[in-house]
Amino acid sequence: MVKTLPVELIADELTRLRATNPLVHLLTNEVVQEITANVLLAVGASPAMIVAEEEVEVFASISGALLINVGTLYPSRLEAMKQAVAAANKAGVPWTLDPVAVGVLAYRTEACRDFLTSKPAAIRGNASEILALAGFAGVGRGVDSTAGSDLAIEAAEQLARSTGAVVAVTGETDFITDGTTTWATPWGHPVMTRLVGTGCALSALVAAFTAHAPNRLNAVASACAVAGICGARAAKSSRGPGSFKADFLDALYLLSPEKLLDESK
Amino acid sequence: MVKTLPVELIADELTRLRATNPLVHLLTNEVVQEITANVLLAVGASPAMIVAEEEVEVFASISGALLINVGTLYPSRLEAMKQAVAAANKAGVPWTLDPVAVGVLAYRTEACRDFLTSKPAAIRGNASEILALAGFAGVGRGVDSTAGSDLAIEAAEQLARSTGAVVAVTGETDFITDGTTTWATPWGHPVMTRLVGTGCALSALVAAFTAHAPNRLNAVASACAVAGICGARAAKSSRGPGSFKADFLDALYLLSPEKLLDESK
Amino acid sequence: MVKTLPVELIADELTRLRATNPLVHLLTNEVVQEITANVLLAVGASPAMIVAEEEVEVFASISGALLINVGTLYPSRLEAMKQAVAAANKAGVPWTLDPVAVGVLAYRTEACRDFLTSKPAAIRGNASEILALAGFAGVGRGVDSTAGSDLAIEAAEQLARSTGAVVAVTGETDFITDGTTTWATPWGHPVMTRLVGTGCALSALVAAFTAHAPNRLNAVASACAVAGICGARAAKSSRGPGSFKADFLDALYLLSPEKLLDESK
Repeated sequence: MVKTLPVELIADELTRLRATNPLVHLLTNEVVQEITANVLLAVGASPAMIVAEEEVEVFASISGALLINVGTLYPSRLEAMKQAVAAANKAGVPWTLDPVAVGVLAYRTEACRDFLTSKPAAIRGNASEILALAGFAGVGRGVDSTAGSDLAIEAAEQLARSTGAVVAVTGETDFITDGTTTWATPWGHPVMTRLVGTGCALSALVAAFTAHAPNRLNAVASACAVAGICGARAAKSSRGPGSFKADFLDALYLLSPEKLLDESK
Repeated sequence: MVKTLPVELIADELTRLRATNPLVHLLTNEVVQEITANVLLAVGASPAMIVAEEEVEVFASISGALLINVGTLYPSRLEAMKQAVAAANKAGVPWTLDPVAVGVLAYRTEACRDFLTSKPAAIRGNASEILALAGFAGVGRGVDSTAGSDLAIEAAEQLARSTGAVVAVTGETDFITDGTTTWATPWGHPVMTRLVGTGCALSALVAAFTAHAPNRLNAVASACAVAGICGARAAKSSRGPGSFKADFLDALYLLSPEKLLDESK
Repeated sequence: MVKTLPVELIADELTRLRATNPLVHLLTNEVVQEITANVLLAVGASPAMIVAEEEVEVFASISGALLINVGTLYPSRLEAMKQAVAAANKAGVPWTLDPVAVGVLAYRTEACRDFLTSKPAAIRGNASEILALAGFAGVGRGVDSTAGSDLAIEAAEQLARSTGAVVAVTGETDFITDGTTTWATPWGHPVMTRLVGTGCALSALVAAFTAHAPNRLNAVASACAVAGICGARAAKSSRGPGSFKADFLDALYLLSPEKLLDESK
């Protein structure tokens, strides 16, 4: 059964994030590193991109959370990612997978399938990616990318059960599931698809919220909700993707748990 | 003979681009990947940076167009570029060359000269770069970088004839030629030189417009015109390069073929 | 003795920078390349990211200044950095070190210590980084990061004397020292810590100001002052880190030596 995430939960999770200001280790793609770092700084986390095999193990172990994003995967970065994941798991640091374009290209598809066996704490993707990762037939480019389709939610729930991860399948409405309970966060806006990195940055937010999280499902759902709420605000105040970007970062910075609660009354 | 590109042609090409929403494979430089992706998303194309040798051949073949930009060239990226170009040519996918700083440094100059033998569909550079690529004497830093100089136009026309590419030599006025016909798009603005990536993103726009283009010369010229018109609008509404960037992306997003035609009456 | 940098000096240095429009070779981290380039373009310098071992030696020798930033260090980039530094030293080109996160991770700490023996013209870091680089005990994450602490200033002065570099330890107030004279530039603003790359871009500004500088201490201090003054203006006009970024670039572009002097009267 799918329920809308209550604002009280979002406010609690945001308060917790700001109080802990978690260090988030990001192994993400070449294109979106700046906006990803800025989204985390704006919301109140501490991003760090540490990429060398000489440094990733130590850094993943001292971080609050780790993100693996395969957008611009290549062999040396993949090797660093594997080492970071192993170190994170050893240290009990939760790690999040963003399987960008999985199902479209064999190299990253195989890499992502391998990562699934390494106990991700969370997985965030669009409907195509979650369908591909869950092994549903006929996936790839051109698949119905509606996050809210029954098939996509079913794939997310199945993927959550088989991996133990909280899975977020995102679009105009996001669905977040641990395989049993499924939250919906209905605040997305189409303009976000016209700005590169909104999905990747959302995965980084998901990672940030999993740091020190007592309830991982609520943490991941709140990350999606925070992005959606701030995205909706920015979509309203902006004229296009250029002004949207500035307004989105400002909205994340200005978002307060108290105002969230006030406005929901 | 140089003629100003008619607005009707620009409107037609923009309508065609939006209808096809082409997938554009970008092998571009480290510095400008985010703005490049955002320019394509704003105008209505689908950018993707796929960089691994394990993935570039497949991806170039399924894309509508490919961009090669040598701004931050190094051996492994160059190797991926060569494989992508070969795959694109085999699949009939048009590819565009941005020869950043060619003529200044031997390594990239040699790489660019090699690429010229692989049938680029389009080449976009400033006057210095086009002069260097055409083998005109005395080129390099400090050369007259006026795109409209007789010498630069002559170099572009000669380069177009020798390679078969449509060549765009860009500056405050851009000149686009297939070696026989030469269009001018007189909408550039100096503030664009104070924001990194405007030239590189223009090359990505050129690539996007070449996808599925029935007339490659008009397609490339329209890409330059769209960038110039939106640049002029953003220059007018902004106070400096920071606000220009947001306004430029918004202008690309808001540009409509209908309004272009209306305003030209 | 610490004195506030006089506005007349800042105006002189900015006038000099704009007149020479120095070419600045940047070997910086993956995350901040775009904002770094944009800060230099906005203020009136010419940034270039040339990264291949095949090109760095030639390019460092023909540049006005070189920046080395170890934020996302890995072996092949480190090798290119070493070659660039050697070539810069041979050609008499000043180079600046930004020792991002030195003291936290062994690999970059060792690399930075090695770089200290290669005669940097300037070093720019936050208090933790300068303390770590100066070899003060107990450094690392969690150290008092107040640039104005007596310990941080002492570390900067000692580092300046032992390396011959001008050292800038930056925070809400920046302190810039050659080991004898120490300037303060008290214009920083906390919002700058919520936008990625403000520190890294400041190091690039420092490098730009060292190009062709008759007085290196005044040059480095003026770079810090220009960033601080424009940061304060942008902090005032913006609502959060998103609008701050655009306003900061605009402020750098609009800053004029004449207005600086007028406003200080």
